[in-house]
Amino acid sequence: MFEVTHVDPSGARIGRLHTASGVVETPAFMPVATNGSVKTLSFETVAGLGFDALISNAFVLYLRPGLEVIEAAGGLHMFMGWDRTVFTDSGGFQMLSPEFYEKTSEKGVSFRSPLDRSRHLLTPESCIDIQNRLGSDVMMVLDDLVPFGSSGDALLASVERTTRWARRCKEANRSDGQLLFAITQGGTDPVLRRRSADALVEIGFDGYAIGGLSIGEPKEVMSRILREQAEILPKNRPRYLMGLGSPTEIIDAITSGMDIFDSTFPTRNARHNGAYTFQGYLNIYRGGFKDDTAPIEDGCKCYSCKNHSRAYIHHLLRSREQTGKSLMTIHNLYFMQRLMALTKEAIREERLSEFKEEVSGPVASKYAGRL
Amino acid sequence: MFEVTHVDPSGARIGRLHTASGVVETPAFMPVATNGSVKTLSFETVAGLGFDALISNAFVLYLRPGLEVIEAAGGLHMFMGWDRTVFTDSGGFQMLSPEFYEKTSEKGVSFRSPLDRSRHLLTPESCIDIQNRLGSDVMMVLDDLVPFGSSGDALLASVERTTRWARRCKEANRSDGQLLFAITQGGTDPVLRRRSADALVEIGFDGYAIGGLSIGEPKEVMSRILREQAEILPKNRPRYLMGLGSPTEIIDAITSGMDIFDSTFPTRNARHNGAYTFQGYLNIYRGGFKDDTAPIEDGCKCYSCKNHSRAYIHHLLRSREQTGKSLMTIHNLYFMQRLMALTKEAIREERLSEFKEEVSGPVASKYAGRL
Repeated sequence: MFEVTHVDPSGARIGRLHTASGVVETPAFMPVATNGSVKTLSFETVAGLGFDALISNAFVLYLRPGLEVIEAAGGLHMFMGWDRTVFTDSGGFQMLSPEFYEKTSEKGVSFRSPLDRSRHLLTPESCIDIQNRLGSDVMMVLDDLVPFGSSGDALLASVERTTRWARRCKEANRSDGQLLFAITQGGTDPVLRRRSADALVEIGFDGYAIGGLSIGEPKEVMSRILREQAEILPKNRPRYLMGLGSPTEIIDAITSGMDIFDSTFPTRNARHNGAYTFQGYLNIYRGGFKDDTAPIEDGCKCYSCKNHSRAYIHHLLRSREQTGKSLMTIHNLYFMQRLMALTKEAIREERLSEFKEEVSGPVASKYAGRL
Repeated sequence: MFEVTHVDPSGARIGRLHTASGVVETPAFMPVATNGSVKTLSFETVAGLGFDALISNAFVLYLRPGLEVIEAAGGLHMFMGWDRTVFTDSGGFQMLSPEFYEKTSEKGVSFRSPLDRSRHLLTPESCIDIQNRLGSDVMMVLDDLVPFGSSGDALLASVERTTRWARRCKEANRSDGQLLFAITQGGTDPVLRRRSADALVEIGFDGYAIGGLSIGEPKEVMSRILREQAEILPKNRPRYLMGLGSPTEIIDAITSGMDIFDSTFPTRNARHNGAYTFQGYLNIYRGGFKDDTAPIEDGCKCYSCKNHSRAYIHHLLRSREQTGKSLMTIHNLYFMQRLMALTKEAIREERLSEFKEEVSGPVASKYAGRL
């Protein structure tokens, strides 16, 4: 189900995850399609960018359009018109969202729909049932996520409940071929993180996600936790760092042994005028780009850079033309995809640490022509 | 420059307009790219839909991003990244827009920029200079447009000024290969309309547009005017009905001898959830489409219909996903393009009147599979 084909001295891996819908080459970045759409793009464009997998949100889709609608279409793949791998998040992450979250009990999490304020109890069993009915390729367990800075007692309780819920998820009914990933908790406490990972590995899952990070803790703390988690987690299972992050954070996490990533950053930043380049982050809305006939990034082979200048995209953004946001999104997702390819190459050549320094430093521009 | 290859008994024509950027097959519908972008789409998508030409707005582009920016890019085609035919409207139509219009004198039209309230005098000479610097393939004269319901004296004055301005436009400096179209005025008065057309034909232009229609007058009045204008205008010149309209209005105008059309309707309606089909206009946002697994139109071969259901697009529209608007726009523009193709076929087979009745009536659905 998951083969590791190469390991760099740093611990970074190249692998292949086999799902019911195909192969996901890792390290893999997944675009986010919370509502069943990668914002501003068609799936033809997303597939053309080379992505093997995306992540949607089971609980958000359960609220709208509802499971009946998606089942009538033949499942989430058919409903969306995307035949490659689909991960679904369980909804656990919405516990950090005041517009969703109400309260937690041993039974599950009580949510309010932000659409109509209706009340919904999400249990480990119902979260698996929802993802089963959606037909996602990779399901995520319901975890008990607590805010950054929670007390030691609260973190311990979260780890223990996350373990019990993960077991209930594993025992719940699901279809053949659907993979189930567990999520470790434990905040920034090394002992609790180890305890969480050990307990989940003992139950046994198809993959392991690191949850409850990138919610406020310092970056070096995150790196340490990731390295420690990678030591504990089985080598023949994919490791998924959820909801993260910037290009440099992702490369850092790959160096720490992580395989799979998702983040709204590239798409959300694009809609807020921010372009990723090997020269750094560019706000294309800024006045300086008004008559800049260069592409967003010289040498980049994405549709936007091959066909349009910074000046044109700047003009569309200023004119509030939706196409401007699409062109920015295409560039940023292409950048992420190329970054994964270059990272893979560096792992294969066992020079990932060097590559990591390069792309974070002043010589990053040597990679510009490699886009 | 313009060849008519077929004329139907109704007077409807098939033709080919040769511009510096290629051939425009008529009857032709042009998508509108006021700001240099067909709203919600990439030009790759617009070209893929089969459009030979689009229309942009010279005065709007002059205000933003400004001529220097577009000239630095090598002209409007290069700036936008669209190498097919570009028509530019002069800005005359903005005289009906209170956010732009200030006053008119013999010299020209005084506008206020809605962006920064700066004042701009648009003269026949400056309007040609702007379009020359943009490098559009087909330039429109500056006409003196008066509101629907203006008095006979005001209409007469508008016709005479439009004639004088058209002559000044023709005498102004322009580049080889740029075509110049005049615009007739005269409201709904048959005598004034004839006078306007006669005077413009005497000056001599590459094409003739019918201006000042579809701004409030009854539909049957418009049909009569179009037929009368078609009788006066030279047979070897294209006739362009500006800013119109619904599919049935366009077919009606083709029957009256018109060749070229533009309208924001298909794109604007799409963004307001309205889909064109041979079964009529469908508001895909409506609750009834929530679990409708059919495509927008059965048998339609557009990207949206081949890949997505009404239920999915309904869901995207409800979720305020920008991609929903793009998918709707693709369908509506494809519908317009196919409608032109079917109309052409009907003209070739000399059964346009029958086709016109069919697509407006209950048997329209027989064409659904022809999309």
